[in-house]
Amino acid sequence: MTGLLRNIRPETEKIDLIMGQDLSAAIDNPLLSEVIKYAVFNGGKRIRPLLTILSAGLEDCNSPDLYRLALTFEYLHAASLLHDDVIDHAEERRGRKAANKVWSNTHVILAGDFLHSHAMRLAGTVGGISCLKVICRATAAMVESEFLQLQNAEKRETAESYYFAVLRGKTAALIAAACETGAIFADSTRDKRQALALFGTNLGLAFQIIDDLLDYLGDEAKTGKTVGNDFQEGKMTLPLLYALRGDSNDCRELKKLLTNTAADRNSYFTRARDIISMTGGFTAARQRAISLIDEALAALHIFPDSSAKDTLHALAHYVLERDK
Amino acid sequence: MTGLLRNIRPETEKIDLIMGQDLSAAIDNPLLSEVIKYAVFNGGKRIRPLLTILSAGLEDCNSPDLYRLALTFEYLHAASLLHDDVIDHAEERRGRKAANKVWSNTHVILAGDFLHSHAMRLAGTVGGISCLKVICRATAAMVESEFLQLQNAEKRETAESYYFAVLRGKTAALIAAACETGAIFADSTRDKRQALALFGTNLGLAFQIIDDLLDYLGDEAKTGKTVGNDFQEGKMTLPLLYALRGDSNDCRELKKLLTNTAADRNSYFTRARDIISMTGGFTAARQRAISLIDEALAALHIFPDSSAKDTLHALAHYVLERDK
Repeated sequence: MTGLLRNIRPETEKIDLIMGQDLSAAIDNPLLSEVIKYAVFNGGKRIRPLLTILSAGLEDCNSPDLYRLALTFEYLHAASLLHDDVIDHAEERRGRKAANKVWSNTHVILAGDFLHSHAMRLAGTVGGISCLKVICRATAAMVESEFLQLQNAEKRETAESYYFAVLRGKTAALIAAACETGAIFADSTRDKRQALALFGTNLGLAFQIIDDLLDYLGDEAKTGKTVGNDFQEGKMTLPLLYALRGDSNDCRELKKLLTNTAADRNSYFTRARDIISMTGGFTAARQRAISLIDEALAALHIFPDSSAKDTLHALAHYVLERDK
Repeated sequence: MTGLLRNIRPETEKIDLIMGQDLSAAIDNPLLSEVIKYAVFNGGKRIRPLLTILSAGLEDCNSPDLYRLALTFEYLHAASLLHDDVIDHAEERRGRKAANKVWSNTHVILAGDFLHSHAMRLAGTVGGISCLKVICRATAAMVESEFLQLQNAEKRETAESYYFAVLRGKTAALIAAACETGAIFADSTRDKRQALALFGTNLGLAFQIIDDLLDYLGDEAKTGKTVGNDFQEGKMTLPLLYALRGDSNDCRELKKLLTNTAADRNSYFTRARDIISMTGGFTAARQRAISLIDEALAALHIFPDSSAKDTLHALAHYVLERDK
C-alpha cells in the first residue's frame, strides 16, 4: 500500500480541496454545512472518485470538471452511509460518533437527501445525461438490493447467486458507475466504457468479499470494527456459504451453531471461525476475490499502458491485501 | 371546485395511468413496488404534475413525454412525505396508516431514496439539463428550509420574513419548479419562464398560508386532520404572527398562552383561536393569501387566453377556497 499511497495522495488531497470548495458554494445553512462536512470529511480513502479520475486518465483525459464530476460518487456514498446510520441506529462510524449520535435522525436523513440531490445535479450538469443515467441506475440498484435483503431477512438464503445479487447492488453498482462515468467523460469508445464497467463491477465484488472476510479475520485494532458481527447477525456471507457446502460433521455442527439466538451465536463465534477455516471457507472466499480481481484487470487489457493503468492495478491489488 | 374538478379529472386520471406504467417499468422488487405505490397512489390531487402540464399547455405544448416529466414532481413530493413521516414518527397520512406504520423506517427511507433518484433520472432524461437544474435547486431549497427551522426550533421567531423564508423552501420552491419545468419543456421565452416561476412561487406561498389557516379553522371531518396542532407545537404561523403584532390586552394574553407547555397550550387552543380571530389575525392572513394569488395571476398576463390558462386561474382560486 505504501507505494500506492504515495501515488494517490496528491490526488486525494486535490479531491478533498475541490470537495470543500464545492460544498461551501452549494450550501447556505451553516448547520447543514456542518452535518455534511462531518459526513464527508471522515478520513475516507476516496476510492470512488479516484476510480472516476483514473478511468478517464486511461485516455489521458484530465480537467477540473473531471474532479467535480468525480465528487458525485463520494457524495452518493456518504448519503447512503448517512441513511444507513439512521436505519441501523449506528453508534460509531470510522472511530467517531455516527452522525445520528451527534445530531438527530432528522438532521441526518435531510443531509443525506441534500447530498443525493446535489450529486445528481453535478452528475447531470458536469457529466451530461449519459452520466446521470449511469448514476441513477446505480442508486436504483442500491435500493433494489436492500429490498432484496429485506424480503429475505427471515430466511437464511444459502444460494451463492443470491449473495452475489445483493453484492452487485450494495457495493459493485456504484463502483462500476464511478469507473464508467470516467470513461463517458473521456469520450471513450463503447467497448472501453463496457470494459471499465466490468472492471468496476468485479473490483466492487472483490472489495465486499474482503470486507466479509475481515469481519471474521480482521484485526480489530486496524479495522476499527468488532469481528464476528456478521456471524452474530446470522448473515450468510461467502466464507460461511462455502463452509456450509459440505456434509461433514464440522459442516453439520456449523449449521447447528447458526440456529442459535444471536447472543448464543456470539459466544460460539470462535468455534464457528475454526470450522470455516478447517472446511476451507476462508480460502475459497479469498480465491473467489482473487479471481474477480484477475477478471477486473483482464478487462483493462484494452487500454494502452499508462500511469493511470498502473495505479488502477495497484488499487486492485490493494483491495485484496487491505487489512482495514 | 366542481367545475374545476370536471376539467382536470381526465388529466389526473391520465397522470395516474402513466405513473403506474412508469413505476412498473422502473421497479424490479415487488416489495419496493408495493411501498412506493402505497406512497404515490394515496388519493392526492396531483396538483404539482398538473401545474407542469398546464404551464406547458399555455404554449399549446403537449406530448406523452410532458406527462412523464410531470411525474417528477409527484415523485419528489411523495419522497419528501415518506422521509417526513419517518422524521415525525407519523401515525396517519390522508386517513390511512402512514407508510412507516405499515412497514419499517428502513423500507420507508429507502423507498424515498428510490423515488428521489428515479425522479432525477426522469427530469434529466426527459426534460434535459435545464429541468434537472431547476428541480435540484428546488430540492436543495427544501432541505435548506428544514435546516432553517431546525436551527430556530428553540426560539420563537416572530419575524414575518422568517415565516416566508421557510415557506419558500418548504412548499413554494417545488411548486415553482413544477411550473417552470413546464415552460422549459415548451421552450418558452425567458420572460415566460420567469413569469411561470413567479406564478408558482406565489401560488405555493398562498397554498401554505391556507394550510396554516385550516390548522386553526378547518373542519376535521373534511381535512382529516386535527385542528390546533400548530398552536400546540408552538408553531409561529401567519395568523398567530399577525395576531401578536399589537399591544392590546388580548395580544398580551395570547403571548402568555404561548409560554405554556404543549399539553397546556392544547387546552387553551379555543381561547387562542378566539383571540386570533378578534385581533384580525385570520383575516389578515387570508388577505395575504388573496394578494399572493392576485400576484400569481398577474404574472400570467403575458400568456394569451387558452383553456390551460383558464384552468390555472381556477386552480389558483381553488387554493383560496379549499376546505381540505
